[in-house]
Amino acid sequence: MTDKLTAAERATHLTPLLDKGWAPVERADAIARTYVFDDFVHAFGFMTRVALEAEKMDHHPEWRNVYATVEVTLTTHDAGGLTMKDIALARRMEALV
Amino acid sequence: MTDKLTAAERATHLTPLLDKGWAPVERADAIARTYVFDDFVHAFGFMTRVALEAEKMDHHPEWRNVYATVEVTLTTHDAGGLTMKDIALARRMEALV
Repeated sequence: MTDKLTAAERATHLTPLLDKGWAPVERADAIARTYVFDDFVHAFGFMTRVALEAEKMDHHPEWRNVYATVEVTLTTHDAGGLTMKDIALARRMEALV
Repeated sequence: MTDKLTAAERATHLTPLLDKGWAPVERADAIARTYVFDDFVHAFGFMTRVALEAEKMDHHPEWRNVYATVEVTLTTHDAGGLTMKDIALARRMEALV
């Protein structure tokens, strides 16, 4: 789960997330997505649901919230890049949004 | 509450917050503070308490969370700078931390 993704794993697991609106991050081996909700209550409600999952997975997002917008960046610092933990957390976010 | 702070109001209301660790933001008429907690649960617990207050005040922070760290920036977009709403929200955060 915490080994850096291989090229084959990227093709298999990353492509479906890129199709959903996630994008690679220039500065690092990471992926990012911006969610825009109707208002702060919906944005922070999403963050709260994700926070509970993230804590359970022991893998946490970098994220920035301004009112209805939540900007998420996922990477695994211990591995120095993307791992299956990031894929799993992105998938959970897609399921919760 | 949403008029830009005067010089006198800044001296009275801003100084105590600057003493607590808040700092002016270079790029804008805003103030910022970084809180560091023991772990994600404490960081997000703080964010949740602040979120409820912010929604009640109808004034929301810009904030970024990475694991145990919460970086907060406060400004009032409608007023183009700092207002008493920012002071009030910063004070609530200091009370909740």
